[in-house]
Amino acid sequence: MNENYLSLNLATTRQQWGFAEAVDGCLRHGVTAIAPWRDQIAKIGLSEAAAIVRDNKLRVTGVCRGGMFPADTPAGRQAAIDDNLHAIDEAAALNADCLVLVVGGLPGSSKDIAGARAMVHDGIAAMLPHANASGVKLAIEPLHPMYAADRACVNTIDQALDICEDLGETVGVAIDVYHVWWDPNLAAAIARAGRMNRIFAHHICDWLVPTRDMLLDRGMMGDGVIDLKGIRAMIEAAGYNGPQEVEIFSSENWWKKDGDEVVRTCLERFSTVC
Amino acid sequence: MNENYLSLNLATTRQQWGFAEAVDGCLRHGVTAIAPWRDQIAKIGLSEAAAIVRDNKLRVTGVCRGGMFPADTPAGRQAAIDDNLHAIDEAAALNADCLVLVVGGLPGSSKDIAGARAMVHDGIAAMLPHANASGVKLAIEPLHPMYAADRACVNTIDQALDICEDLGETVGVAIDVYHVWWDPNLAAAIARAGRMNRIFAHHICDWLVPTRDMLLDRGMMGDGVIDLKGIRAMIEAAGYNGPQEVEIFSSENWWKKDGDEVVRTCLERFSTVC
Repeated sequence: MNENYLSLNLATTRQQWGFAEAVDGCLRHGVTAIAPWRDQIAKIGLSEAAAIVRDNKLRVTGVCRGGMFPADTPAGRQAAIDDNLHAIDEAAALNADCLVLVVGGLPGSSKDIAGARAMVHDGIAAMLPHANASGVKLAIEPLHPMYAADRACVNTIDQALDICEDLGETVGVAIDVYHVWWDPNLAAAIARAGRMNRIFAHHICDWLVPTRDMLLDRGMMGDGVIDLKGIRAMIEAAGYNGPQEVEIFSSENWWKKDGDEVVRTCLERFSTVC
Repeated sequence: MNENYLSLNLATTRQQWGFAEAVDGCLRHGVTAIAPWRDQIAKIGLSEAAAIVRDNKLRVTGVCRGGMFPADTPAGRQAAIDDNLHAIDEAAALNADCLVLVVGGLPGSSKDIAGARAMVHDGIAAMLPHANASGVKLAIEPLHPMYAADRACVNTIDQALDICEDLGETVGVAIDVYHVWWDPNLAAAIARAGRMNRIFAHHICDWLVPTRDMLLDRGMMGDGVIDLKGIRAMIEAAGYNGPQEVEIFSSENWWKKDGDEVVRTCLERFSTVC
């Protein structure tokens, strides 16, 4: 079954809409898949969020986000794991396809990226039993290398898949074109992820030239340089035909526009350039 | 012979000093290796620059920069090659260790990064006979993936080495810690470069957290998160013991300081954290 329809990651309309308003906005445009953030869930309350999802038969393509494992003390690492257990419960309550993991960067004043990567592996391993017991898949999201220091020290699909191989079939990857489009090994890495049956999510947006802010200047599909159709073809050839989730952080552009205009534009671009 | 001394890439004091002033500044602090940029050479004139290098027995660890191969027309690509032939002549006149190649990004409105990468390969191949006849080694500098769209579509050491393998022993890599520190495959890639005898330059600076500008906010060694000693150890184990070339673009900090203070700080950090 081809389920390649659009999902709205609710960060895309974070400045315009809370959880309920975003769902209303999506439904006005026929969008029936969403990916909320934990702060958005917390604000409305988990049970209310779950009721909205259930009552409207929404598909939740992911909950954003768990992760942030590295810390410079054992207590700090345990606190991160504990928080991730709560995130699993939220993903389970929303019947989400996966919990997205943004794994975290270098802890404290550390320069030991290999050590941070080991903490990520161990953190995921520690949360995995609860995830499996809850039926929640974990999707490691490799982040662009420009976030290696402060957000995620897992920076390529292959690196994520090495962790997945070690931890088992319920740990996969969220492939966000923004983070991976530049990878010289992209085609082979996506094919490998497909062979492993570990593509759990497909996120889209675009890379603007110039990019004016390292975090909050993502582009609408079609406004940048990413070969969205080409990467989609790789992902489909690898066996993933699920929704494409639009995730745009855009403090100076899309976050300033009317939410309906944003969703309308996402749908239009989805039908033309994705 | 261990030649692991400091070289000053003259971009580091670009706002303070021209070519001749920078050499004077270096000599005041006992620095006898430099890497000038082509605009700095052009401003003083190639013959005068060569005379300064010769008279002061300077080592030129690289000329910055050739490259920028992709273009959306054959004429544009040929113009880039022609310009690179001039760059070879300048590197030869200064007896530089190498001509550094920043290979260029996506041409025009292209989204075809594989096509851009092919143009890079073909551009280097086209300039190679003149480089070899001139005794000038070509050092491909893999740039951080955040520059893939607009500056360099060669983004990892391994990717550069694949090109080097195809083009022969006079095409190698300039390893800049700023661009490669995040690479999960870094140790293996440096070891491979060593086995191929293709490490032609070692550039240093630091990655600041936060990084406020994608181009002009590089840090002084020790002020960021890069494990400089660790990467140096990998490079030395791979057989390269040449100078470490400091290259810092810093519009809001180091470019605003007195040039002598910059050089003094580079030397102090070189002796403590590199």
